[in-house]
Parts: sequence; structure tokens; C-alpha cells
Amino acid sequence: MSERTLRVIGLGLIGGSLLRAAAEAGWKVRGMARSAAVVTAVREAGFDATSSIEDALADDDALVVLAVPLPAVVDVLPMVARHAPYCRLTDVVSVKQPVAAAVARHTPAARYVGGHPMAGTSASGWAAGSATLFTGAPWVVGSDDGADPVVWAQVAGLALECGAHVVPAGAADHDAAVARVSHLPHLLAAVLASVGAGGGSLATALAAASFTDGTRVAGSRPELVRAMCEGNRDALLAAVDDALGRLGAARGSLASTGGLAATIQAGHLARQTFDRHSSRSDTVHIDLTAPDALARLRDLGHQGARVIAVEGTSCRLEFGS
Amino acid sequence: MSERTLRVIGLGLIGGSLLRAAAEAGWKVRGMARSAAVVTAVREAGFDATSSIEDALADDDALVVLAVPLPAVVDVLPMVARHAPYCRLTDVVSVKQPVAAAVARHTPAARYVGGHPMAGTSASGWAAGSATLFTGAPWVVGSDDGADPVVWAQVAGLALECGAHVVPAGAADHDAAVARVSHLPHLLAAVLASVGAGGGSLATALAAASFTDGTRVAGSRPELVRAMCEGNRDALLAAVDDALGRLGAARGSLASTGGLAATIQAGHLARQTFDRHSSRSDTVHIDLTAPDALARLRDLGHQGARVIAVEGTSCRLEFGS
Repeated sequence: MSERTLRVIGLGLIGGSLLRAAAEAGWKVRGMARSAAVVTAVREAGFDATSSIEDALADDDALVVLAVPLPAVVDVLPMVARHAPYCRLTDVVSVKQPVAAAVARHTPAARYVGGHPMAGTSASGWAAGSATLFTGAPWVVGSDDGADPVVWAQVAGLALECGAHVVPAGAADHDAAVARVSHLPHLLAAVLASVGAGGGSLATALAAASFTDGTRVAGSRPELVRAMCEGNRDALLAAVDDALGRLGAARGSLASTGGLAATIQAGHLARQTFDRHSSRSDTVHIDLTAPDALARLRDLGHQGARVIAVEGTSCRLEFGS
Repeated sequence: MSERTLRVIGLGLIGGSLLRAAAEAGWKVRGMARSAAVVTAVREAGFDATSSIEDALADDDALVVLAVPLPAVVDVLPMVARHAPYCRLTDVVSVKQPVAAAVARHTPAARYVGGHPMAGTSASGWAAGSATLFTGAPWVVGSDDGADPVVWAQVAGLALECGAHVVPAGAADHDAAVARVSHLPHLLAAVLASVGAGGGSLATALAAASFTDGTRVAGSRPELVRAMCEGNRDALLAAVDDALGRLGAARGSLASTGGLAATIQAGHLARQTFDRHSSRSDTVHIDLTAPDALARLRDLGHQGARVIAVEGTSCRLEFGS
């Protein structure tokens, strides 16, 4: 049953976790890592692995997952084009527009549906992986026009089998959203940590929970944070400008009237909205082969819906947490 | 033993917790709250309480604690000046320069040593208090020149008996430090929450732990956050300007070269420094009656030392957490 054959290119935290989770869900899996030590470790853990990408791509009928960092995507894609040009292809990279552009350029014949499981960034490597990494995590499945409904259903099904909930979104919308709720938080945490350190040991001694919480992700590996943030440059610039505008307005208000009501109230309301669950509780069915299926999926994703089941080429979405 | 008689003016979260903790430590306590309902609740909990400030200040030989919000300090001080002009006086307000200025103006004869226990802001009121609120928390004790060594020792001793560790600091240094590590984090959390909400339901659905952590304190009661931030206006403006400068530099770098190395690396290093304990492990004894005692205390506080014991008018400080 080649439909459920998976090839995972790159066996770091995400790729390695996907290999484990998919195997547990009954997929026939094979992983590929350049490092011989990693391949050995993966085999010792009981999984099929190879250090040859040609070997990994030999089965043209597998679903291929790009699980390499963004900068390596352009190195891997030409090999995919060479060895499995028509393959079903997805990825787990944290930005979607640059990957989609690279796929269009290097492997235009592949049936590509992008993905982004939003789990774990502070640990890394095969050893840090786990079959349960994706449990309860959002997993974005790219829903731009042109996506093959069969591949879309397989990628969404894989994500669900890994324990994630599927959020349908277009690449541009995805990148704009994660800039606001993932990349900007990392940047603000770095800024806050530096401003705090500027206060010396006394400030450190007086650091409240607000500082500890607000700087936690500044402890993440800098090269991973940079890759994530720099890879989403345009969308992150827009989010940073929004933050600069709001912080500048707060500064102006504090300096002129001494008041921060607008800033504090807006933030409080926003956080309350974030904590509140969606008021919608209906279920929506989508036939993935319908002409407007992808537009409807994007619209539902915009409204906070998630895919909770895939059957053949139809899926079911729900609202709420 | 009048030395260990305490009058707590204001019985909200901090004042109410202090009343409980000091009573447990053997102080003879009396609380004052304007609300009859609060007085009843405090009495039902087994503590002495009054709604008359004259009554609360009748014992001129007690240590008086101002535990009212900053805006109410100027209302209470004239009554202190009237009923107990020479009292030993401290406070638990989150900014120190405005309180010191108000004390100098309204109760110049009081023997004032400021304080700031850094515990709990998201709950409030007598019912939310607890005798253990201060356990392990930093408690700043004002150490500007002119502080009475006897009162300093009593305030520091009270803080230690409440389970806190004492950080000596001048009022200006305190206000600058908390602007960086407490007030700015609240402002950035509000900004981040608003930017996230600007991304709509899709952004909310994709919010990572970085967003949840970075916006947590935006859930605090807006009026408390405002009072805290607005009361520390000048120091907060400087901290905001530092943050704006750093975020603006990151924006410029991302827009021009596409790189965020400087920002991310600096933040990572700062957070690592924050997580690391002090490398010093020596103990320092200070005779509080020595001419340079307060200057030495401030200097040690700057270096991250904390007072761990007070005996008579001498105290012992240690480094590390």
C-alpha cells in the first residue's frame, strides 16, 4: 500500500519525531540523514534509514517529507527533481512562501502540499525527538489554489495520525500569522532580555515573573531562532512595524499625558480574547474535490477552524480549542 | 515589646499578606482598612483590625506600613503626620522615588525606610492574601543616605521574617531596575497581545508557547498594571526608549541585510546570564551604624547581593540565589 509509504529527508527533532510517530501509526517509513552517526542511531532505534538521498527517493510512489532547515531546502529539491520528479511532496519548514517558491522552481512536477507542525524549537536533533511531539499541536497544511486534493488529504491525514490538529491556511496567511505569534515573540524576548541585562545585577535580582516569562524563549538556540525569523523576513518586518508603532504610541502617551490606558487595555482585551474559546461549535464538511474546496478551507482556517478528520478526499472541521 | 508592634495601613493583597505573615512571625499586628466589610473579614480571620486611621496610629511606637496604592499615599501621609508624626515608617509600594518624595513633604519627621516586596500582582484583595506570599521573593529595602540604621534593621528583619530575601537599593536605582524587569515586560506583553490579535483567529490558532509566555501578564488587572507603570513614568520612559532602540535596530538590520544575529545573540547571552547564578559566594557583614554602611549596602545590592540575616544593627549579605 504505497499510499502509506513515507520518506523523511532530514532526521532532526521534527523529522525524527515524524518518523517515529508515522511508524507508530502504521506508515511504512524510511528516513534519510547525511550523518552516518545519525543513521546508525536511527537504525539502532529500529527504523529503516539511509544516508543516500537516491536510496531514500528510490520509491517514486512514496510521500516525501522535506524535514531539513530552510537553507537546505534548495540543496535537496534538485535531487528530488532528479530521482523522484513526480512524487507527492510535503515539508515541515516553519515558513511556507519561500518553500513554495523553491518547489515551484526546482520540482515543478512534484505534487506539493506544504506543512508546518508547530511543535518544539528549544531542543534539537534525532535524540530529542519523540513519537508524541505533535500531540495536540497545530499542524498547518498548505491550502493555496492548485493543491492536489489527494495529496492534501494524505498530508492532513498524516498530521492527524501524528496527534496534531490540522489548520488549513494559504502560504502568505501562514507566514503573516506566525510572524505575529511566533517570530515576533522571539524578537521581543531577545530585546527584553537585553534591556533587563542593561540594568545589571540589581535588575536581575529584582526580575519578576513578568520578566522570566517574557524572556523564556530567548534561551532557545540562537541559530534556530535566526533561521526561523530571518526566513520569514517580509512578514516579520510587518509584524515588527506593528509592534514598533504600538510601543511608540505607548511611549508618546506616557511622555505626554502620563497615561498608558489605551495600550494596557488593548493588550488585556487581546489576551482575554486569546484565552477565550471560539463561540462557534458547529462542524463543517468539505469535499476536497469541489472547485471551491481550498478557498473554503482557507476561509475556515481564518476563522479558527481545524480539521479533525479526513476520509478519502473529504474532511471534517470543527471550531473551538 | 513595642519594637515588634506593626500597624498595616491598607489590607489588600500585599498588606493583608503582610498582616498574616508578621503575626505568624510573632509581631503584634493591627490592620486598617476603610471598608467595613474588609475589617469584618480580617477580624473573622482572627486579626486585630480597625476602619479608623486614628485608631490604627494611636500607638506612636509601632512600625507603620503604608500598604495602599501609590495614588492613595498622599491621602494617608497627612494623617500619619497628624497622629504619629515621629513614627517608624515603611511602605510596600512598587515605586520608591515618588513615595520618598511624598514622605519628605508630608511627614518629614517620620523615620522612613522604604520597602518593596516583589510578590503577586494578578490577584488582589484581602481574600487573595497569604502568609506565605513573600516566601523566596525579593524585598527591596531602601538604602539611601539618611536612613535610620535601627529602622533599616527592623524593616529588613520584618522582610526576612516574612520569608523574603532583602535586596538593599537606593530609590532611583530601584525604580530604574523595576522599570526594566517588571514594568517594561508588562508593556511589551500588552503590545505583543495586540499584535497577535491583529492576526485574527488564524494567528490565535497558531500561537506558540513563545506567544503564550510573552503575553501572560497582559492578563493582569489593567488598573493595577497602569498604576504600577504610570507611577514609574520617568524610569519606564528610559526603559521603553532602550527597547525601542533595540527593536528598531533589529528592524533595520532585518530590512537591510536580512540578518538578526546581533539582536538574537545579545538576547540569548542576556538570558543565559540571567539564568546563571552569581559566581561570588562570599558573605559580607555590614555594621549599619558605620558611616559608609548605606553606600556599601547599595553597592552590594548593585552586585546582586541579598541580606540574609539581621542581628541588632548589623546584617549579613550573600551572593547567588
